[in-house]
Amino acid sequence: MSAAKRNRMRLIEDRLQQIACSPCADGTINPIRKLVDQLPIRPNPDKSFLKLSIGDPSVFGNFEPPAEVKNAVRDVLSGSCQGYEPAHGMIVAREAIARYYTTPASPLTFEDVYITSGCSDALRIAMDCIGTPTKHIILPKPGFSLYQTIAGNRGIPTKFYNLIPEKNWEIDLVELESLIDENTAAILVTNPSNPCGSAFSVKHQLEILSIAEKYGVPIIADEIYQGMVFEGESHSFGELSKNVPVLSAGGLAKRWLVPGWRVGWLVVHDRHQRLSAVRGGLVKLCQVIIGANTLIQAAIPRILSDTPPEFYSSTLSRLKNAADIVYAELKGVPQLKAFMPQGAMYMMVQIKVDQLADIEDDMKFVETLITEESVFPLPAGIFGIPNFVRLVLTVPEDILREACRRMAQFCDRHKRKH
Amino acid sequence: MSAAKRNRMRLIEDRLQQIACSPCADGTINPIRKLVDQLPIRPNPDKSFLKLSIGDPSVFGNFEPPAEVKNAVRDVLSGSCQGYEPAHGMIVAREAIARYYTTPASPLTFEDVYITSGCSDALRIAMDCIGTPTKHIILPKPGFSLYQTIAGNRGIPTKFYNLIPEKNWEIDLVELESLIDENTAAILVTNPSNPCGSAFSVKHQLEILSIAEKYGVPIIADEIYQGMVFEGESHSFGELSKNVPVLSAGGLAKRWLVPGWRVGWLVVHDRHQRLSAVRGGLVKLCQVIIGANTLIQAAIPRILSDTPPEFYSSTLSRLKNAADIVYAELKGVPQLKAFMPQGAMYMMVQIKVDQLADIEDDMKFVETLITEESVFPLPAGIFGIPNFVRLVLTVPEDILREACRRMAQFCDRHKRKH
Repeated sequence: MSAAKRNRMRLIEDRLQQIACSPCADGTINPIRKLVDQLPIRPNPDKSFLKLSIGDPSVFGNFEPPAEVKNAVRDVLSGSCQGYEPAHGMIVAREAIARYYTTPASPLTFEDVYITSGCSDALRIAMDCIGTPTKHIILPKPGFSLYQTIAGNRGIPTKFYNLIPEKNWEIDLVELESLIDENTAAILVTNPSNPCGSAFSVKHQLEILSIAEKYGVPIIADEIYQGMVFEGESHSFGELSKNVPVLSAGGLAKRWLVPGWRVGWLVVHDRHQRLSAVRGGLVKLCQVIIGANTLIQAAIPRILSDTPPEFYSSTLSRLKNAADIVYAELKGVPQLKAFMPQGAMYMMVQIKVDQLADIEDDMKFVETLITEESVFPLPAGIFGIPNFVRLVLTVPEDILREACRRMAQFCDRHKRKH
Repeated sequence: MSAAKRNRMRLIEDRLQQIACSPCADGTINPIRKLVDQLPIRPNPDKSFLKLSIGDPSVFGNFEPPAEVKNAVRDVLSGSCQGYEPAHGMIVAREAIARYYTTPASPLTFEDVYITSGCSDALRIAMDCIGTPTKHIILPKPGFSLYQTIAGNRGIPTKFYNLIPEKNWEIDLVELESLIDENTAAILVTNPSNPCGSAFSVKHQLEILSIAEKYGVPIIADEIYQGMVFEGESHSFGELSKNVPVLSAGGLAKRWLVPGWRVGWLVVHDRHQRLSAVRGGLVKLCQVIIGANTLIQAAIPRILSDTPPEFYSSTLSRLKNAADIVYAELKGVPQLKAFMPQGAMYMMVQIKVDQLADIEDDMKFVETLITEESVFPLPAGIFGIPNFVRLVLTVPEDILREACRRMAQFCDRHKRKH
């Protein structure tokens, strides 16, 4: 029997075996979705289940998108809005986004904008276009876990720089610089931060840019929360960068409160034309799934121009208020330490495990908290930092207060007796 | 100077150099989008530009989605429809899709359905979940070029089986079987076919299934045109398969005429539970870009249940009529041979280059046709078959007739003089 024939015979014998999943799919781990979609723990049936886990402002009905957003979509729906558009986006939408982010220092045109299927897709395309199996991307720790999901899917190696809680979650710049070598494809920064709720000062942003400039490394900036700071101004890395190429990921999800609509974008800031090849790659990558929903794309110009400034300021003042409430409620709990955010929609709370009797880490804290108190914050181990939990601040005030009270009781019940 | 220091210095010197695009992005080629988005040829300014190139039924306003589709979306928009849903789809939408495709022989539940950002994304996820850099996928030739775009992006090797024009574009089964070996991850089939407009008989579908079964190879079925046949019934591979696992890709794009909305799905038919690992991988892959637009997802149950049967039959009779017109118009052109389609929205026309004086292939044919006659069919070299062009049949009747007449004049003008 020939080798070919033998192989065929073996195939025939194997025909009822399991079909393997590719290593690439297998290596694609999204710990947030895994935990949230397939929660292994049952809440206490006697207590209402309070989820402070997912950064989805729409869950409780208290953070609705502005009427102008739905009106814009409604009007587009009455016209013709269902055809294919260029894979990297409708020109009118790209023009509107370019106008929205243009500053005198950093003018943009539609050609600098690539529309994607949500900000996640923008991050995927940016990382895929610059990272390779031999060129790593440097990520924040703690950081949004999707970056590792994407790196795992694409086989892109990663390194991590630490954010320092006591310094308002600023980057450890000495460490960041030490991680850069000739195989560094990009530095990824998140500002304002998910999960920390922190916002960098302009001074700190310039320090980061200066390190990137020194080594000629581009920045991928996850700026989905740009503009969402409680006080002062919010500047994008692209706007501040004179010499560092910046790929800035954004979208409608958080600022306009429509995360499920899956419309995001990548804005390229590149004053010295160093990204010509990368731009070609971005177009190619957009052509694989042929872009974002055209109904929403066509509404973008009006969404960006018609949303009243009061909508943004009202959202922010309510988020700030929520942060103040949580901070005040948890201040008296000796086993917890809340870190006041400056923006986005999250707060990080440190768990002093050495002051708890039977809680060895954040995962055990969350599991036990769900079982006993039906309160579900995200264990921040998911974001790469141990013994913190992330609370979502879009939850209604009464639920937030109740969740904090239950956490306080929980800590008191589990406190270590000396 | 230490090696590390030297590397740093070199980095600093290189800091104004171009940033490289990853080989993966560079290898992602979508020839249709490349040609259509960046057409290098100018049409004749004295003649109206007749585009028969893109399979987008919405371009001319003559193939509008049914009113029920927009009504369903309008109603959803009035409610709350903007939050995150599970990354692989809203359960109500997955249930509706499962009901829609369930047959007595092949019952489905929502757990067999994965909603994706368009059918392209469904194909991407299916190929990515089964193919690997060492396990190839066998593709049709001619075939929709996106399969190679995806394979190029993911580094999945491909092989090709031929479709035989004279046998109604049936698969060369002997050749297909000869291509299967122990590294075959899947056979991909398209039915009804883009670009051919052909539809397999049930007998031929069973022959294909029988080969796949013999070697235990799963089938990825691109069935975005399922149901779109001019005569007789349309059966999915999943419905007909007793023992072969089938991943069937579909979506709203073609049958409901909303390609820009980017909502598709993968339906898994797996009667012997051979795809357990693959299902896990599909969920993981969906979690990278976190699903399709929820506004449209929430409308799926009503879109599928409310669209009247007359809408489908009217679309098909108009497509059949368009095919008849083109066939009749081109019948008298000795340099062309039209192949009558049985479904989808395309017709393939062979160019007898030996009967043309200065046209050496389909690309030259199309370029010259655009320059002289402002008529733009797609050169089928893009689909892997030389010396054919693909015409789109959703173009209005008068434009189709005019395009055919110009093609006839063009052929007469360029005919080889003996």
